[in-house]
Amino acid sequence: MTLPLALTMGEPAGIGAEIAAKAWHALHRDGPAFFLIGDPAQLAGVPVAEIDAPEQAAAAFATHLPVLPLRLPAPVSPGRLDPRNAPAVVASIEQAVAFAKAGRAAGVVTNPIQKSVLTAIGFPHPGHTEFLGVLAGLGRPPVMLLACPGLRVVPVTVHLALRDAITQLDTARIVEHGQIVAEALRRDFGIANPRLAIAGLNPHAGEAGTMGHEDDSIVAPAIAQLVAQGIAARGPLPADTMFTPRARATYDCALCMYHDQALIPVKTIDMDGGVNVTLGLAIVRTSPDHGTALDIAGQDRADPGSLVAALRMAADIAATRAKEIPA
Amino acid sequence: MTLPLALTMGEPAGIGAEIAAKAWHALHRDGPAFFLIGDPAQLAGVPVAEIDAPEQAAAAFATHLPVLPLRLPAPVSPGRLDPRNAPAVVASIEQAVAFAKAGRAAGVVTNPIQKSVLTAIGFPHPGHTEFLGVLAGLGRPPVMLLACPGLRVVPVTVHLALRDAITQLDTARIVEHGQIVAEALRRDFGIANPRLAIAGLNPHAGEAGTMGHEDDSIVAPAIAQLVAQGIAARGPLPADTMFTPRARATYDCALCMYHDQALIPVKTIDMDGGVNVTLGLAIVRTSPDHGTALDIAGQDRADPGSLVAALRMAADIAATRAKEIPA
Repeated sequence: MTLPLALTMGEPAGIGAEIAAKAWHALHRDGPAFFLIGDPAQLAGVPVAEIDAPEQAAAAFATHLPVLPLRLPAPVSPGRLDPRNAPAVVASIEQAVAFAKAGRAAGVVTNPIQKSVLTAIGFPHPGHTEFLGVLAGLGRPPVMLLACPGLRVVPVTVHLALRDAITQLDTARIVEHGQIVAEALRRDFGIANPRLAIAGLNPHAGEAGTMGHEDDSIVAPAIAQLVAQGIAARGPLPADTMFTPRARATYDCALCMYHDQALIPVKTIDMDGGVNVTLGLAIVRTSPDHGTALDIAGQDRADPGSLVAALRMAADIAATRAKEIPA
Repeated sequence: MTLPLALTMGEPAGIGAEIAAKAWHALHRDGPAFFLIGDPAQLAGVPVAEIDAPEQAAAAFATHLPVLPLRLPAPVSPGRLDPRNAPAVVASIEQAVAFAKAGRAAGVVTNPIQKSVLTAIGFPHPGHTEFLGVLAGLGRPPVMLLACPGLRVVPVTVHLALRDAITQLDTARIVEHGQIVAEALRRDFGIANPRLAIAGLNPHAGEAGTMGHEDDSIVAPAIAQLVAQGIAARGPLPADTMFTPRARATYDCALCMYHDQALIPVKTIDMDGGVNVTLGLAIVRTSPDHGTALDIAGQDRADPGSLVAALRMAADIAATRAKEIPA
């Protein structure tokens, strides 16, 4: 029996339920099968099958969206955050991770959450990914990979002021990210000899030190260490020319030095919706690369493309891991 | 009679002559007409007409690539820089600008130069654009605009270490760039009410000050000043989401805070070759958005797409300016 994917509700005032229903329409014929951990009352335009356990999802999926009920205590008004529903948002994530860790779900796909309303009820984590690191981490910080057709990117620093990203960039951090990414490309994406392209920090990768010293003093030594470990890493590359269509074809993942350097090219391409994959967890986890879209919630205008791509990618990763022959 | 464009030779050891010949093949039937200021001995695979004056170019163009001879003193070896030829590279630019200033050429299109070999003979300018600012400036520093199908971008800071770009970013500089860009979009691109999208410096445009203060303290006040001057400017926008295909359709030019923030999205798209346009000069000037490509020089492998796009765009800008009714 194929294991289904567990999909979390995400922020109830956002577009999570709407894109879950639309994703079921897109996938119910060919799969992958998934079940939603959320409130059936939020779903419209889709035949719902309430289930008691993940094991019932696969059989129901062809004709119904399977929902493991997690009922919200307060009525939902689209676009309006309500802290009374925030504990259910957190519980949905916890349940999904527990099913995946127990081998009862193939992986976790998360709908977007709104951090501010969770912070208001005492949620102590800086973000979704960090919370998953606590629930299912492997002793190293989880790493965010973004993927779209023809491009994978990983930012080495993420949610920091640009000034702080420069200050906090160091060789060890780049090496650790390179190792985690190379390992994940092998295990999750089935790439035997992954090729990493490492971006420079400064314009033209510093142009031999004439525009900043960090590429020579911080990035280049990290690449040398990765190469010494047998990883096909190359750079520091000028960040502007490494994302042309021709250049993208020469590597399996780009390692970027800061948030926007990684996210701009993925979202510029943005054809079928990007996918966010969390590397370095004990479970498979993907998510769409957009937010809660409170501004268009409840209007039937949300595009499920990125969620559909996230569900497909989670299933592919789970299948690749399942094929792996243990060493 | 239509004025021809003046094309400079660029670095003779690079791909300039090769892409000039290929651009002639692409354009000789429909135009725009151009003439090369360079050494006829460098040209292969193209019928050459040596001319004495720009006025002879238009008639020759349908059957021959018109060349205003500027013979190189030293033999050219592809990929090998030779300082003996550097003065001719500079003279080619000076002559092209002089023709445009005299109304004898519709504009200047420059082939890529190699700064290091010019510096070796005492060329004192940081780059091509700065040199053109000296030859044909209007009292303000020239501004670099990059364009590709569906996107125009302008970096507010350019060739600086990223750390220094942050330090040197100030409100006045953003306002001045916004003014120059809005004026150029009207005059050169025929957009009556140009819409500017202004990028934030930090991830998520600082997310209300939680990731860096510069978006609130430096960028937002500049936008307020531009709006007060009647310019349709909006932002600071999160840089990662402002370049999606859907977002790109909502503005005429993106103003970016640093080099790679502007250049990454253009080169990620890079379909027909990006074009570099210099704003704020007394003349029309465009150039391809690539370098001298010394590594593939002399191998007949260079793609003329970006130069062809640069020639077409220079002609379009010149035509738009010519239509303008003086105030």
